[in-house]
Amino acid sequence: MPKYTPPLRDIHFVIHELLSAEKIFASLPAYKEVDKETLNQIIEEAGKFASEIAFPLNQVGDKEGCVRRDDGSVSTPAGFKEAYAQYVEGGWPSLSCDPEYGGQGLPQLLNTVLYEMLNSANQAWAMYPGLSHGAYECLHAHGTPEQKKLYLDKLVSGLWTGTMCLTEPHCGTDLGMLRTTAHATSDGAYSVTGTKIFISSGEHDLSENIIHLVLARLPDSPKGTKGISLFAVPKFLVNPDGSLGERNRVSCGSLEHKMGIHGNATCVMNFDGALGSLVGEPHKGLSAMFVMMNAARLGVGMQSLGLTEVAYQNSVAYAKDRLQMRSLTGPKEPDKAADPIIVHPDVRRMLLTQRAYSEGARAFAYWVALMIDTELNHPDDDVRKDTADMVTLLTPIVKAFLTDNAFTATNEGLQVFGGHGYIAEWGMEQYVRDARITMIYEGTNTIQSLDLLGRKVLGDMGQKLRKFGKIVEAFIEDEGVRKDMQEFIDPLADLASKVEKLTKEIGMKAMMNHDEVGAAAVPYLRLVGHLVYAYFFARMAKIALTNKASPDSFYQAKLFTARFYFAKLLPETAQLIRAASAGSKTLMAMPADLF
Amino acid sequence: MPKYTPPLRDIHFVIHELLSAEKIFASLPAYKEVDKETLNQIIEEAGKFASEIAFPLNQVGDKEGCVRRDDGSVSTPAGFKEAYAQYVEGGWPSLSCDPEYGGQGLPQLLNTVLYEMLNSANQAWAMYPGLSHGAYECLHAHGTPEQKKLYLDKLVSGLWTGTMCLTEPHCGTDLGMLRTTAHATSDGAYSVTGTKIFISSGEHDLSENIIHLVLARLPDSPKGTKGISLFAVPKFLVNPDGSLGERNRVSCGSLEHKMGIHGNATCVMNFDGALGSLVGEPHKGLSAMFVMMNAARLGVGMQSLGLTEVAYQNSVAYAKDRLQMRSLTGPKEPDKAADPIIVHPDVRRMLLTQRAYSEGARAFAYWVALMIDTELNHPDDDVRKDTADMVTLLTPIVKAFLTDNAFTATNEGLQVFGGHGYIAEWGMEQYVRDARITMIYEGTNTIQSLDLLGRKVLGDMGQKLRKFGKIVEAFIEDEGVRKDMQEFIDPLADLASKVEKLTKEIGMKAMMNHDEVGAAAVPYLRLVGHLVYAYFFARMAKIALTNKASPDSFYQAKLFTARFYFAKLLPETAQLIRAASAGSKTLMAMPADLF
Repeated sequence: MPKYTPPLRDIHFVIHELLSAEKIFASLPAYKEVDKETLNQIIEEAGKFASEIAFPLNQVGDKEGCVRRDDGSVSTPAGFKEAYAQYVEGGWPSLSCDPEYGGQGLPQLLNTVLYEMLNSANQAWAMYPGLSHGAYECLHAHGTPEQKKLYLDKLVSGLWTGTMCLTEPHCGTDLGMLRTTAHATSDGAYSVTGTKIFISSGEHDLSENIIHLVLARLPDSPKGTKGISLFAVPKFLVNPDGSLGERNRVSCGSLEHKMGIHGNATCVMNFDGALGSLVGEPHKGLSAMFVMMNAARLGVGMQSLGLTEVAYQNSVAYAKDRLQMRSLTGPKEPDKAADPIIVHPDVRRMLLTQRAYSEGARAFAYWVALMIDTELNHPDDDVRKDTADMVTLLTPIVKAFLTDNAFTATNEGLQVFGGHGYIAEWGMEQYVRDARITMIYEGTNTIQSLDLLGRKVLGDMGQKLRKFGKIVEAFIEDEGVRKDMQEFIDPLADLASKVEKLTKEIGMKAMMNHDEVGAAAVPYLRLVGHLVYAYFFARMAKIALTNKASPDSFYQAKLFTARFYFAKLLPETAQLIRAASAGSKTLMAMPADLF
Repeated sequence: MPKYTPPLRDIHFVIHELLSAEKIFASLPAYKEVDKETLNQIIEEAGKFASEIAFPLNQVGDKEGCVRRDDGSVSTPAGFKEAYAQYVEGGWPSLSCDPEYGGQGLPQLLNTVLYEMLNSANQAWAMYPGLSHGAYECLHAHGTPEQKKLYLDKLVSGLWTGTMCLTEPHCGTDLGMLRTTAHATSDGAYSVTGTKIFISSGEHDLSENIIHLVLARLPDSPKGTKGISLFAVPKFLVNPDGSLGERNRVSCGSLEHKMGIHGNATCVMNFDGALGSLVGEPHKGLSAMFVMMNAARLGVGMQSLGLTEVAYQNSVAYAKDRLQMRSLTGPKEPDKAADPIIVHPDVRRMLLTQRAYSEGARAFAYWVALMIDTELNHPDDDVRKDTADMVTLLTPIVKAFLTDNAFTATNEGLQVFGGHGYIAEWGMEQYVRDARITMIYEGTNTIQSLDLLGRKVLGDMGQKLRKFGKIVEAFIEDEGVRKDMQEFIDPLADLASKVEKLTKEIGMKAMMNHDEVGAAAVPYLRLVGHLVYAYFFARMAKIALTNKASPDSFYQAKLFTARFYFAKLLPETAQLIRAASAGSKTLMAMPADLF
């Protein structure tokens, strides 16, 4: 049976020692009273909920899955409903929500930490409150006063939950093709008709009402993505006083049988003249939905960090416990029948890969969360603009780099267990199956890569990328004089200049042939991901070196992990640069009928 | 629903045009009458069996799995038993078996082709005859005359099946720790007692008897792997006339719940004083079992090739069919609602990755199979020795490189399907789950890498590797003069010299510190794997260039695939060399308690 311990020490390190979050909060009026003690106390409580309530339901959720009854209702696995009730009772849904609607008004960073731990504990379960929080953010940003009044406090408290309904059988990536329609009714509402698929948390028994945010076309809509509107369609109609009215004409047609995240209900949702209200302006639904999508992309990053961390913890425990073979350099525990497998270099490679990806992801994702807090709350326009640019640039990297790495990491975790890793009861294969979806949903990793290279980098002539580059350069300049930092600064500087050069090269080629963007995008995103991680591992190494004499062995471990990252994972950049430079010719030359 | 078409054109290409198998068979007395027509006819029939009988049972096998009844009997999924009966009736188990025992005496190559197709069709099902064939080979090589008389003709006909029983709960890789015991009985038999786990095809309803080949310790055995003996333990005792006697004291205690290969019964087998007979000499069971293990490792390679091919076929079909977005260079099918996704460069990268891994694996694995035929049948001692050396060197590469690549390829296949790839009914996620075990069983890929670098390369001071190097050098010398071959010969020659240099470096470091072998082994194996593939893609490109004017577009497609391989997959070697050179220090420095 797997285990999970919230990694509080590393979380504290990243928040307080690496990012100095309290200092940043002191500059944000909304959070100026959020001090270290408050942060740590909430994080500790969140860790307890994750490890004690959500985690024990992870395997049973996978085994039981969700069940759709003949009446279209869906029951979640044993214990899910009770855990959700405790989550609501604990006030967790409201953590970073607007106090005007009953929220606690705490930073996004805290919500990010909460979701790391919830996802280590139980990804399928965490998707119920996760989607709901996205719906809250979307309505908070784009809802009408009436929608806010009717829905927000219930979403904030967790009494109701939410979904996002985008995909249809014939369109996922290409939302311009969507066919679901909406017609104005005589009383100012809209009647929505169509079929949506892959709707996570679409129907379930956790909450008394579900608010679906649905993309659909109005009758007079332009073709393509510019003719899509967004509607709020509740499962039960809501009376003006907020009480529940009639059942709306939206129902779960079936549940998908999936590779993983069995505990989450992935629904085919049928809208059959369901009544809803328009969110935001007509035909501008996609930009409203993107508020939710961007939050969801960071959320998917947190799923990946959570899975990476829990897979790491379990494979370390197994590697210390499992006795098999002797060390190549002679017995390390001669009294035992064999050495624990952690003595073997390649087992350590697998463990350290997971560890480095977990620590790198935590530093990176928490930093982005802090920038979101800054973007939304800083009094200075320029600071808001700069951090908004950073968040825009980095969101696809959080999504794609973390999810690819989580799939690698959970697979390494499985591999450490040998044959036992393939057996369900040990829990490791579930992490691999659960992780696999994160590379697909909320925009496939190819789409993220195109978004990064095409839109965010080349689309503004590299301006946003240069902002990030300046942050890296400043660090290199500051620390380059320290002799003990050379081992980190040199490869970081080398990579930074290679990324700059490659970006220019691709930009030149792309002007002649747009397929060059498509051909380079995936390796390019991973390359920039490594630049980000190299920057953070160098920063973390600096703190570790500064605390070298500390009796707290945490700093030594951090230094070992940073060195491993630079020696063994960063070399991937050599491949990525070659693959990204190799261009589109060998991809596009073969006529389709020869495949 | 997935589909499968036997890739006969490429199979013919590899056998006849690339490897000139008929010429080699002409030099082997046992096969001198095996001509092209015979080969093609059998391959075509095998393809029919695979695609028409075994393939339709693949998804139902995954869904139903195997069921153990209270009496310990195990039923396989619907249709498995009938398909096996047809397999036996068709004479397929006997294809490459010894005519003395009813075999058809055909080359291993044919059996290899058969297993590629069976595994494309249904890996879980193919494991029943697959394990059996391994048991046949082991008993054929090491059995006593009496064992051969009692068991071989039944295993050859397929009337009975076989297993290999190695792993125990506390030992998998480290067989020296095994505890199952065997005691001589008064009448010259042995009584075997112990628990074996992860026994594929351990109990089922396909055959009337099952011959278990079981590793166990005799009372006077030396410690470790030098004290392990091998026993043949039948499910039903066999009377001297070959008829079935009493039920033996061996039974299936439970079935494992696994990530994939659900249709194969993975059993905990309890031996409770089960009667068996000694195979080979006392205490030398491991070397006898290695006959079976080596065959099984090549068999696992065929599983990987089979899965890669079928994943490729299905994702190509989807990519041509699925309409989504427009090409970055402007609409390609303006009459349709969107372009088929095969217009997108990164979709093509995913497809071509699968295609290149499939074609590379086929060329490589068939070549190894032909060398096994040569090793076993060539009249010249030196030729037998040389090919035996090659097979020994290359077996761990077939196992580890092909299985890693198959996991990549099946995952790329899933990714092409987007969200649909994650849904069971499309069949792609099953390929990923099924492929995942191949990196673990028959010796994990780390063990394969240590076997290659430690034993097969450094263990004989690079002699075997140099034999392979000479084959590559000869090709480079022959073709280096052709101008149109430069694009392939230059990177091949470059890689060959880098492998040579790296091997020496690691050898030097390993003399000082054995952990350097463990640290370098995994990237080293992949590096040599790429050398093998680069060699074969260069050879295949040469044939394609020679047939450039042919109306058969197959040759153009081969050339496109080869160019893709060199441009986009071979760059991984840049990473591998850096990772292998980075040494053991960053892996071993961190004390275990800091993990």
